[in-house]
Amino acid sequence: MHVLITGAAGMIGRKLAAQLVRNSGLGEGAVDGLTLVDMVRPDLPERAPFRLITSVTDLAAPQAAARLIADRPDVIFHLAAVVSGEAESDFEKGYRVNLDGTRALLEAIRIAGDGYRPKFVFASSIAVFGAPFPDPIPDDFALTPLTSYGTQKAVCELLLADYTRLGFISGIGIRLPTIVVRPGAPNKAASGFFSSIIREPLAGREAILPVSDDVRHWFASPRCAVGFLLHAAALALAPARLGPRVNLTMPGLCVSVGEEIAALARIAGHKATARIRRERDPVVAKIVAGWPQSFDARRALALGFRTDTSFDEIIRAHIEDELGGQIAG
Amino acid sequence: MHVLITGAAGMIGRKLAAQLVRNSGLGEGAVDGLTLVDMVRPDLPERAPFRLITSVTDLAAPQAAARLIADRPDVIFHLAAVVSGEAESDFEKGYRVNLDGTRALLEAIRIAGDGYRPKFVFASSIAVFGAPFPDPIPDDFALTPLTSYGTQKAVCELLLADYTRLGFISGIGIRLPTIVVRPGAPNKAASGFFSSIIREPLAGREAILPVSDDVRHWFASPRCAVGFLLHAAALALAPARLGPRVNLTMPGLCVSVGEEIAALARIAGHKATARIRRERDPVVAKIVAGWPQSFDARRALALGFRTDTSFDEIIRAHIEDELGGQIAG
Repeated sequence: MHVLITGAAGMIGRKLAAQLVRNSGLGEGAVDGLTLVDMVRPDLPERAPFRLITSVTDLAAPQAAARLIADRPDVIFHLAAVVSGEAESDFEKGYRVNLDGTRALLEAIRIAGDGYRPKFVFASSIAVFGAPFPDPIPDDFALTPLTSYGTQKAVCELLLADYTRLGFISGIGIRLPTIVVRPGAPNKAASGFFSSIIREPLAGREAILPVSDDVRHWFASPRCAVGFLLHAAALALAPARLGPRVNLTMPGLCVSVGEEIAALARIAGHKATARIRRERDPVVAKIVAGWPQSFDARRALALGFRTDTSFDEIIRAHIEDELGGQIAG
Repeated sequence: MHVLITGAAGMIGRKLAAQLVRNSGLGEGAVDGLTLVDMVRPDLPERAPFRLITSVTDLAAPQAAARLIADRPDVIFHLAAVVSGEAESDFEKGYRVNLDGTRALLEAIRIAGDGYRPKFVFASSIAVFGAPFPDPIPDDFALTPLTSYGTQKAVCELLLADYTRLGFISGIGIRLPTIVVRPGAPNKAASGFFSSIIREPLAGREAILPVSDDVRHWFASPRCAVGFLLHAAALALAPARLGPRVNLTMPGLCVSVGEEIAALARIAGHKATARIRRERDPVVAKIVAGWPQSFDARRALALGFRTDTSFDEIIRAHIEDELGGQIAG
C-alpha cells in the first residue's frame, strides 16, 4: 500500500516515517511507497525497503491537495499544522494551514470521483478542550476550545466525521496528549517546560520551571504517539469497530510536575534535578491553568490504544531514543 | 441602533422583523434602521417607525459580506441557512451557504479594522447533537452531528466562540429546538409532521403521522424562538454574563406525539384529531430515532431564556398568530 504523511518534517512525522520503515508495513499490509510532505523538505528515513517520495507543498494552495493525492495513497496520516502558539499569534496563518489546508485535502479526496476512499488518520489535540472541566474529562464532553489552534482542530474533527459518514474517507481523529519528552531545542510553546525540565538536566543543562510542582497535565511519549497513529490506521481499516464517533481522546498519563521531577531523580539522581531552577511565570501559570489535567479515555482504551505505563518509562525511552543511552554526569 | 437580519425571508426572520417593528427597539435601545437580507427579496414589515432596507445577497459570493456590513450594523441576527434536508441532498450548497457564508460574514467583520465589533446572534440548532444521548442531554455534552447541516452549524458555533474570544464580535449562538407549529404548506423535512398534525387538522385538512405516538422530541413555538433571539441580543450586549461558552442549548418542551394530539383534542376537539391519519414510514421513523428528545438546558434558563409553558399554549399561539383566532369546524 501507499502511505502519505503530511507534516512529515515535524517531530512526530519523522518518527512515524522511521517506524514505518522499521516495520516495512502497516497492520497486515506491506508498504510499497511512502510520500513525505511538508512546507520544508522532510528528511528521508534511511534504509527504506520501499519507494520514498518527498514533496514541499502548501496544502492550502490551489490544486496542491489534488496533486498530492494524484496517485491515490491508501493511507493518509494528516499531521500538518501550525502549532498552538503560532496559530494564536498569526490568526490568518493558523486558519489557512490548520483549517483550509485540511479542508482542501478532504475536498480533493471527495471530488476525485473514482471511488477513491482512503484511510485518513487525523492528528487532533487535547487543545480542543477548554476549562472549566470535570475531572476526569469523559469521552462525550463538549469541545469548548480556548485557542484558535484548538478551534481549528475541533472544526477539522467535525469535517472528518461528516466526510467519513458520507463515505468519502474512512477517517479517524486522535486527540494527542501533550508529548513529553520532546527532543530538540526549547521552544516558546507554553507547554515547553514539561519537556525541558527533563530534557535539559539529562543533557547537563539548566531548565526553568515556571509553574508550581502541583500542576498536573496529560502526557504521552513520542513513541506512544507513533503507536497511537499506527493503531488508528489499523482501526480505519476496520471502521465498523469505530462507529460514527470517529474522534477519540487518546489515553495518557496524568502526572504532576512534582511527579515528573521525582521520576527524574530516580533515573538520573539529584544532580540532574538540581539543574531545575524554579522561576514562577504568572503568564504561563495562567495559560496552563486553563488546560485539561486528566481524561477518562475509556473508548480509546477499549479500542486497543495503549499508553505509557509510567513517567519513568517515558524518561527511559527519551534516553534510549535521543541520547544513545547516555545521560550527563 | 442599526439591525441586520440574514435569512430574513424565512419564517423566523419574518417574525423577528415584525417583532422589532412592534417593539421599535431592542432591549434598552431604539432601532433606527433595519436591513433585511436573503437570497430572495424579503417582505417589508408594515408601519415600521424606522428606516428599512432589503437586499438580495448570497453571503458566500466575493465581497458580498463586506458590502452588507459597510454601514456597520450594531446587531446582526444571522439566520441564513440551507435547511437540513437540502444540506444533506446538496453537499456543496450546504457547505457553501451554511459554513462559507457564515465564515465570510465573520471574516468581513474581522478585517473591517476600524474597531467594529457588532453583537452577533447566530441561529444554531439542536441538529448539532447526534445519538446516542443521555436523557436529558446536559449543557456540556459533545456535539456529534449525524447530518451535514448539523456539522455546519457545529463548525459555525466553534468559529463564533473563537471570533468572540478574540474580540472581533460579541457573539452568542442559540440552539433552537424544532419549531412547532410551523405555518405554511407542508414541506419535505423529516420533522414536518410534528407541525402538520396540528396545523392541517386546525385548517380542516388531513395530516399524515409517520411515527408512533410515543415518539418524543424538543419543541418551541415560533413566538418563543423570536423571544430567544431578542433575549440573545440583549445578552450579547452584556457579554460578561455569558462567559466564554457562548453557544447555548435553548429550553424547550419535551412532548410526545401522543401529547401533541391530546392537546389538539382539548383545544379543537376530536373532529380535529380524527383528521390525523396514521401511516408508518420506516424511513422517517429511523431518522427521527437519531434525534434528541430532551435537554437539561439549565444554563439558558439561568440566563433568563423563557420557553412555552405547555403544548396547549403553542397551539393557541398558532391559532392567534396564523389563523386569526379561527379554527375549522
